[in-house]
Amino acid sequence: MEQKKFTIRVPATTANLGPGFDSMGMALQIYNEIEIEQISNGIEIHGFNGLPLSENLVYTAMEKVLTRYKRKAESIRIVGKQFDIPMSRGLGSSAASIVAGILIANHCMDRILSVEEIINLGTEMEGHPDNIVPAVLGGLTISIMDGENVVYSNVSIPRKLQFAVMVPEFKLSTHEARSALPSVYEKKDCIFNISRAALLVAAMQREELEKLRAATGDKVHQPYRAPLIQNIYEIFQQANDFGSKAEVISGSGSTLLAMVERENKDFKEKMENYLNTLPGGWKIHMLEADEKGAVVY
Amino acid sequence: MEQKKFTIRVPATTANLGPGFDSMGMALQIYNEIEIEQISNGIEIHGFNGLPLSENLVYTAMEKVLTRYKRKAESIRIVGKQFDIPMSRGLGSSAASIVAGILIANHCMDRILSVEEIINLGTEMEGHPDNIVPAVLGGLTISIMDGENVVYSNVSIPRKLQFAVMVPEFKLSTHEARSALPSVYEKKDCIFNISRAALLVAAMQREELEKLRAATGDKVHQPYRAPLIQNIYEIFQQANDFGSKAEVISGSGSTLLAMVERENKDFKEKMENYLNTLPGGWKIHMLEADEKGAVVY
Repeated sequence: MEQKKFTIRVPATTANLGPGFDSMGMALQIYNEIEIEQISNGIEIHGFNGLPLSENLVYTAMEKVLTRYKRKAESIRIVGKQFDIPMSRGLGSSAASIVAGILIANHCMDRILSVEEIINLGTEMEGHPDNIVPAVLGGLTISIMDGENVVYSNVSIPRKLQFAVMVPEFKLSTHEARSALPSVYEKKDCIFNISRAALLVAAMQREELEKLRAATGDKVHQPYRAPLIQNIYEIFQQANDFGSKAEVISGSGSTLLAMVERENKDFKEKMENYLNTLPGGWKIHMLEADEKGAVVY
Repeated sequence: MEQKKFTIRVPATTANLGPGFDSMGMALQIYNEIEIEQISNGIEIHGFNGLPLSENLVYTAMEKVLTRYKRKAESIRIVGKQFDIPMSRGLGSSAASIVAGILIANHCMDRILSVEEIINLGTEMEGHPDNIVPAVLGGLTISIMDGENVVYSNVSIPRKLQFAVMVPEFKLSTHEARSALPSVYEKKDCIFNISRAALLVAAMQREELEKLRAATGDKVHQPYRAPLIQNIYEIFQQANDFGSKAEVISGSGSTLLAMVERENKDFKEKMENYLNTLPGGWKIHMLEADEKGAVVY
């Protein structure tokens, strides 16, 4: 281990962005931070609210990588320092934990892993690359599985946009949200998403905000997940009325995301007042995209 | 009619580009040209090989627009001057004819139509926007149907790329090629194309040529159309061996398209020699993307 003490910071991520199911993801400026310190002996884990090691994704991800490379964790203290990414809300908290675990392992192994290896390991553990890639790299990314490997690219994010992240109290498990989906789709629904996923990339890249509403249309996952999120359509409509450019489910929910022009300064307050009239304990955060991804400092 | 005599030039277009079914399209530097001249009386049509008016897409498209705007064609000579876009080969010859017809009507009406109206009219006649939009605008475009309207965006094309267009003697009707497709798709195949259509836009925009092979993967149309195109997989493999970055069916075929680096100067000759060993009467053309679209001069 090169450094005696360091901190790993990993951003939240919002996947899908409407049509880009299992492939698009964007990092947001909310973070989890884990502190790592070299100690004289053994393994110490603190600050994870007494979570058993077998359920601690940071620890299990670290262990998997070390085992794969025939190493062992030793003489290390892992301290959960800050957990701002809400869990089971579609903001990539599991991807953030997995990435943190891999980066701890990597630092224990004197950083032998390439970015590609980190992304492939993380995707293997998470099952899909859409949150892992932006959690590692930051920004807005497109990721596909090409056999066993992830191939990804970056898309620039319009400078005028901020992201209204609306988080309810109720959780949605990815498993539950996935089992709501059909196993086959009509050709027209498939084309609906193919064309919009492509258009969304182009419109983002060219900062064509007026095209975002049409480009974020989706018939693959949101219509099936919407019934799991109370008031979703009222919230979307209200955000639209307050000037949002597009509204989507963040990941598999329960968080909702609205794309809002930075100059729309009243949006947060108006939306907050509206959300307060609803059940569900909704909180709104106006966030910037994170462009740095996971950092070690 | 403002001008007494003018020429309309419309480019060939290649749709789909692998995953972007019914939405991606790119204009290529092969053109059809129609000459229009104001005459004293009546309608004269020349140079369409004796095609009956009811089967002449240029004429019928013009008529439809004029009827819609309660006008009539009169005192006009329409001369088919150059038809370099091969018909029923997946290179957008019907889109080119439709666009030419609309532009003739537009010039008869003193250019009252906006670009959006031209695109919407053309798409209504063609049934889908993927060839119409690049035939009008040039370049590489993404188009979706948002209700009755086409919403589109542009994607920059890597300067290093040329396009090897391989045209066989045999035709494939769009109707036949469409009826080969299933009406439902498994979720995984749908996601396969969604993710690749998005990645292809990003990779094109960022000139990441090494990602084009993975990004042009498709499970929606090519596997079903391939059996209609003899030797397709051998041709794809040979193009790959000669250094092509990706190979796809152009539109619904029968033409095949390979994306080739400009500096790969031997590609055409090698591929031509190979194609000459096959049945099918294949011809190869190394083409540039057209960035101007339909022009009137």
